[in-house]
Amino acid sequence: MRRIKLIIEYVGTNYNGWQKQKNGIGIQEIIEKAILKSTGEEVELFGAGRTDAGVHALGQVAHFDTNSQIQAEKYFYVLNKFLPDDIKIVSSCEEKQDFHSRFSAKQKTYLYKFYASDTIHPLKEFDAVKINSKFNFKLAKKALKYFKGTHDFVSFCSSNTKVKDTTRTIFKISLTKQKNGMFVFMVCGNGFLYNMVRIIVGTIIEIGQHTKKISDINKIFEQKDRTLAGKTMPAKGLTLKEVKY
Amino acid sequence: MRRIKLIIEYVGTNYNGWQKQKNGIGIQEIIEKAILKSTGEEVELFGAGRTDAGVHALGQVAHFDTNSQIQAEKYFYVLNKFLPDDIKIVSSCEEKQDFHSRFSAKQKTYLYKFYASDTIHPLKEFDAVKINSKFNFKLAKKALKYFKGTHDFVSFCSSNTKVKDTTRTIFKISLTKQKNGMFVFMVCGNGFLYNMVRIIVGTIIEIGQHTKKISDINKIFEQKDRTLAGKTMPAKGLTLKEVKY
Repeated sequence: MRRIKLIIEYVGTNYNGWQKQKNGIGIQEIIEKAILKSTGEEVELFGAGRTDAGVHALGQVAHFDTNSQIQAEKYFYVLNKFLPDDIKIVSSCEEKQDFHSRFSAKQKTYLYKFYASDTIHPLKEFDAVKINSKFNFKLAKKALKYFKGTHDFVSFCSSNTKVKDTTRTIFKISLTKQKNGMFVFMVCGNGFLYNMVRIIVGTIIEIGQHTKKISDINKIFEQKDRTLAGKTMPAKGLTLKEVKY
Repeated sequence: MRRIKLIIEYVGTNYNGWQKQKNGIGIQEIIEKAILKSTGEEVELFGAGRTDAGVHALGQVAHFDTNSQIQAEKYFYVLNKFLPDDIKIVSSCEEKQDFHSRFSAKQKTYLYKFYASDTIHPLKEFDAVKINSKFNFKLAKKALKYFKGTHDFVSFCSSNTKVKDTTRTIFKISLTKQKNGMFVFMVCGNGFLYNMVRIIVGTIIEIGQHTKKISDINKIFEQKDRTLAGKTMPAKGLTLKEVKY
């Protein structure tokens, strides 16, 4: 029995998220079917992060156990033959039996893309979200440092969460503006609560739009109240960039 | 009667090109219907370039004549209410009666996006084309200068063309590589023959893949034979960036 690790890139638009679903199709399920077709084995595929419906991935990681004889490094090639163009394996390799895509993860990096405009820009809409044109980039950038480090992020987490320990550490956080007007938010941490990235982005955007103040951030952390933070930004701007072990 | 100029951004994927079609829907038609809904007038909309099926635009230009009282600068806003999210007017203004979106154009700029990989990268597939992973970027860049200036581009033009004068001038041409591995080809000229950009890109890629030599370029120009140039690259990598007057 060998443990195989996959690095996966996908466009989330046409799927109901990573996880197997009662309604709609999960990305996990599509890849499990490709493994069945390639190896004849019904396996369970464990993903590093359960991306929501509409969320994309550049480097989602997943693992499964197999008795098949396919070379570990060839899996990416074999599985891609059975995968649609919006889900592809970028690389594959063998891991030790104690490796777990989710529990062994040390760092995750997410990107969030948005643009500030009065008009929808069709060529930006694929993986970014339009916000109101009145957005102060420099002010929003100043807010970033307050999220860095170890905090209880319960105020920046969906109230539906069942997790008990809501403390997380953010190692890196940045906001850049591309030549074409696209804003790219990047955050790297040891883990993220449900909707945490989308709520942090929503809060930072509201600061750039003067509907929240930088001085509000510490208050939101202290009050431990989800309703004080910014709104949850739409899924389609979010991409799981990388998982490190 | 006033002449209104529109700057239009669109994703070409879901349309059968700019022009009104017998089969399939043209982008021109969609905007003409939005004008009818806004003004009650049946107008003919003249585009600067007849982009093919699947080709995108960041700055297509089009004009029409109207008796309506809508302020010229407000058209972008009024029309967008009747347009789908993959076709939007970026701005609008009034022009003199002798302005013609196509015949007054002095410069057009196109972008072509591609990436070199053994695997399809789903997040790049939206507006770029995958080529073979063996691609020598520096070599391809060296080929660019041979296209600059005034030439008879008949060898770099679809053999279906009915145009008599196949001489065109290229002012600027470049190839850059982005951090994420995307190659962006840019060409700016006084006009382009049918499929000319896609055939030039195909030729440059074949040079980077060592299936054509840089010294072949001048021969291809001299022989005036379409079959000697590279293949026509797929439409979805091409974007009409800008039209200048």
